[in-house]
Amino acid sequence: MPDISLGELDRFARAVLVARGVPAADAALVAESITYAHAHGKGTHGAPRLPIYVDRIEKGLMQAETPLTELSAAPALALLDAGDGFGQVAGIRGMDRAVDMARTAGVGLVGIRHSHNFGTAAFIAHRAVAAGMAAMVLANAAPAIAPTGGQRAVFGTNPIAFGFPAPAGHPPVILDMATSQAARGKIRLAATNGEAIPEGWALDAEGRPTTDPVAALAGSMLPVGGAKGYGLSLVVDVMAGLMTRSASGGRARNLNTPDGPSRSGHMLLAIDIERLLPRADYDAAFAELIAATRAAGPEGGVFLPGERGAGHMAGRDGKVPLSAAVLAKLDALAAATGVASPAHD
Amino acid sequence: MPDISLGELDRFARAVLVARGVPAADAALVAESITYAHAHGKGTHGAPRLPIYVDRIEKGLMQAETPLTELSAAPALALLDAGDGFGQVAGIRGMDRAVDMARTAGVGLVGIRHSHNFGTAAFIAHRAVAAGMAAMVLANAAPAIAPTGGQRAVFGTNPIAFGFPAPAGHPPVILDMATSQAARGKIRLAATNGEAIPEGWALDAEGRPTTDPVAALAGSMLPVGGAKGYGLSLVVDVMAGLMTRSASGGRARNLNTPDGPSRSGHMLLAIDIERLLPRADYDAAFAELIAATRAAGPEGGVFLPGERGAGHMAGRDGKVPLSAAVLAKLDALAAATGVASPAHD
Repeated sequence: MPDISLGELDRFARAVLVARGVPAADAALVAESITYAHAHGKGTHGAPRLPIYVDRIEKGLMQAETPLTELSAAPALALLDAGDGFGQVAGIRGMDRAVDMARTAGVGLVGIRHSHNFGTAAFIAHRAVAAGMAAMVLANAAPAIAPTGGQRAVFGTNPIAFGFPAPAGHPPVILDMATSQAARGKIRLAATNGEAIPEGWALDAEGRPTTDPVAALAGSMLPVGGAKGYGLSLVVDVMAGLMTRSASGGRARNLNTPDGPSRSGHMLLAIDIERLLPRADYDAAFAELIAATRAAGPEGGVFLPGERGAGHMAGRDGKVPLSAAVLAKLDALAAATGVASPAHD
Repeated sequence: MPDISLGELDRFARAVLVARGVPAADAALVAESITYAHAHGKGTHGAPRLPIYVDRIEKGLMQAETPLTELSAAPALALLDAGDGFGQVAGIRGMDRAVDMARTAGVGLVGIRHSHNFGTAAFIAHRAVAAGMAAMVLANAAPAIAPTGGQRAVFGTNPIAFGFPAPAGHPPVILDMATSQAARGKIRLAATNGEAIPEGWALDAEGRPTTDPVAALAGSMLPVGGAKGYGLSLVVDVMAGLMTRSASGGRARNLNTPDGPSRSGHMLLAIDIERLLPRADYDAAFAELIAATRAAGPEGGVFLPGERGAGHMAGRDGKVPLSAAVLAKLDALAAATGVASPAHD
């Protein structure tokens, strides 16, 4: 596969977005979310999304500007309207607001209304972690999971992320999980490759277990851990969707929907750790926790959440692979926007 | 099995606790947690715990009084020390404090240090829900789950609960889940009955999958959904244990430990829903969400989180079953404390 440097990917994404009316500072955040995804081994949430954003802006399904109008505010709580703009801009600016409130109130909670998918939830959590805070990130999404006992999808694969600063020498501990058993992208890949999927991943349209990826894509994803995953996906729909006055109960739509904005929402929490204990005590206890976790298995056999993603760029010389199909789409974007095509090996 | 009324169970539990030095108001909360557990079909978290509390108080492993000393405070955040007292008292008083802060700040977060198991997490979440708030409850516990890739238990079955008020006519929506695949009590029951447990529940002491409940009890519980459940149990250990200056990283102990207090912690979040949207709008959207969820399956086939527990007392005439073994222990407690034995059918 062709390799592209993260710097070149960043340049290209920013230039394309600016060419389509996205303010420069916002384009920088979206580009950062794309390079973050690739740098952490989640390329599915990166460059392949760029043509989708541009297409949606051109069709008026998504706004180039993300206003973040304040709908309500309290000392530790705010609700901001993203106006059908970029999830990354809403997520990062919203988390910055949560961090600001946490500095004075100890904790800050920000709801985002009428947003779009923000790439990886880890990217949003990381923003608070970089400010020395603990974070929780919830986002609701288009129907993909049927409630336990049912066969029609109502809840999204609704990601849940938690992030924590780690002691010096260890990457941040960031858990970023979908509430489905498997990622939908893996099912799409199996369909493309004509392979079966494992049992326990999906149901067909009649609610029967299936190993056929095509039937699975027409049906629903199984929640992680059965009823517990269903419960978690519902909780995220309520907190990130319903409580932010966004679409909920099966009404949120995905980034590929041709007939309107996603209307999904986010709920972002930041906690000022140093209001609870001195950072040195936190670091010492966390170092013990990491050591105990690693000691539970063979050397090199146990990883902390986020650890493997943080090590993804080791030995890659700052470059990540892009498929020829994705590169072709980026070249088409370049031609359409007058931006120089991305350089690659 | 003999039946006992919830009123009689409440009377007996309160009287026994008061006889052992628990303040009357605190004894009432602990008794309420016990009857709540039975009334919601979670009797394992109810009456069987009463002899354990009394035994621990007598041995000095648990304090009859729960001081809740304030260690730190901000407008929306507080850290309270439970002084090795009752988890129920710390959880309920802590959640009340979170609710109070949420009324002025929009959100309130309370950490509890050096506490004990509080019964069901749903009981604590329910307190905020009764005040019209959304709630999150986290608690860390003694090692039971090995991190993915390892074989020694480090993290507890660490419960996570979320609670939401529901529209009139529907019980509160409360998700209360352990981060293990199965409840440890089910494995103990299988061991008692000499039955095998399903694959996927547990590992033996060498980290190998096992269906032998005795080997499982000597080994570790599998986390729900594999690495995701491991990640969630770690997140709870950090937020409820480490960040509250309680025991973490495998150091918390369970209620049966004979050599010291549990030193487990809780993290309690309350959100004032009406700072985000009018309650009427919330109720209308929630009614739609409930209808969409139920419509995803056959009539009567889909339940909201907490719905079955809320219906547990239907047709029971206010009475719940207690095993002869548990009743015998309660009778022994009665004799030891001079409290009248619980009346039962």
